[in-house]
Amino acid sequence: MFQPAFILVRPQMGENIGAAARAMWNFGLDHMRIVAPRDGWPNQSAVAMASGAGRLLDEAQLYKDVTSAIGDRTHVYATTARPRELTKTVLTPEAAMADASARIRAGAQIGILFGPERAGLENDDIAPANTIISVPVNPSFPSLNLAQCALILGYEWRKLVSDTEQFSVAESSEDQAKIADIEHLVSHYEERLDEAGFFFPAAKAQSRKTNFRN
Amino acid sequence: MFQPAFILVRPQMGENIGAAARAMWNFGLDHMRIVAPRDGWPNQSAVAMASGAGRLLDEAQLYKDVTSAIGDRTHVYATTARPRELTKTVLTPEAAMADASARIRAGAQIGILFGPERAGLENDDIAPANTIISVPVNPSFPSLNLAQCALILGYEWRKLVSDTEQFSVAESSEDQAKIADIEHLVSHYEERLDEAGFFFPAAKAQSRKTNFRN
Repeated sequence: MFQPAFILVRPQMGENIGAAARAMWNFGLDHMRIVAPRDGWPNQSAVAMASGAGRLLDEAQLYKDVTSAIGDRTHVYATTARPRELTKTVLTPEAAMADASARIRAGAQIGILFGPERAGLENDDIAPANTIISVPVNPSFPSLNLAQCALILGYEWRKLVSDTEQFSVAESSEDQAKIADIEHLVSHYEERLDEAGFFFPAAKAQSRKTNFRN
Repeated sequence: MFQPAFILVRPQMGENIGAAARAMWNFGLDHMRIVAPRDGWPNQSAVAMASGAGRLLDEAQLYKDVTSAIGDRTHVYATTARPRELTKTVLTPEAAMADASARIRAGAQIGILFGPERAGLENDDIAPANTIISVPVNPSFPSLNLAQCALILGYEWRKLVSDTEQFSVAESSEDQAKIADIEHLVSHYEERLDEAGFFFPAAKAQSRKTNFRN
């Protein structure tokens, strides 16, 4: 499936650009664009931090402003922590990625804007976007950084395209043993089994005990 | 609601402990436990990195081993990237947090184990746990670090307890304008409006233009 472009707007620290590249590639995303990075481009700090995701930096497209970076996109999301006076639909990361994948299936070209570390996106960056994405953070500590924000968007994207099975929620009982109680029971049986010569031969005793405890 | 304890098992770098504290507090979680940290405790590198989430480190409970750290828990999850030979249910972060919140409502005490940065949890750490949590990462680059893993679990927890509205997915049309085309149209109207004296007074022209573009 086509994927959204992650567009870093005026990123400051090279380390954060590299960390964002890693976060993207953790979830199989590799289309990065960079708008007017503070310290120029290429950036050796970004390369050092990206390690296994360095290819994303090599292939990243560089733009002088937001307008040119999103020119070929048909639907753009702007990530922002705080509410804005601009009137736009606000989506959670999960809803936004579901929206994006539906649009991509219908032929859309998607871009997601991420602001500079210190101040975030400015209103002039957000104005041309179609939709705002806001991560539901702790209002007392809403300090997500660039790479964390990219990680969560990438994670929600991956959930949509991943075939990892979602197991059903287990039934809960109100009468539950504490792990310490289970540990006592297991230790009791382990000692009895040990006395009886169950964990034999000695070379395999440890792995047998681990399996028994499991 | 009661919350799960995040249990860092033999963490190595203080910076990663601090970053995990920040990740937890970003999503309103503040119950941290630490098992046998490599560099002792307290750890100044952890404090420096935690910044606004330093309280979690002050209040973190220290344990000598996993068994004592989970002794008072009734249900324990172990986070691990790779499949294990141990036979246990494997849940995604989303399913695991739904499971955990259902268990907490039924009176359970929850713990989530996070392994050391380099090698992850060992089989002997995982054996006493009830359930495995595996983040669906890119198989070519499964390199989530401790703080990233804590961030994703915290994020999924927050989604359950947050009242942020999930907007519905918008209908998509296959006939969509590119942002560059919209920009041309908007610039055209902006110029005509400017000629007509619409953006008046001059002191407010910029914010009016931003609103117009929005």
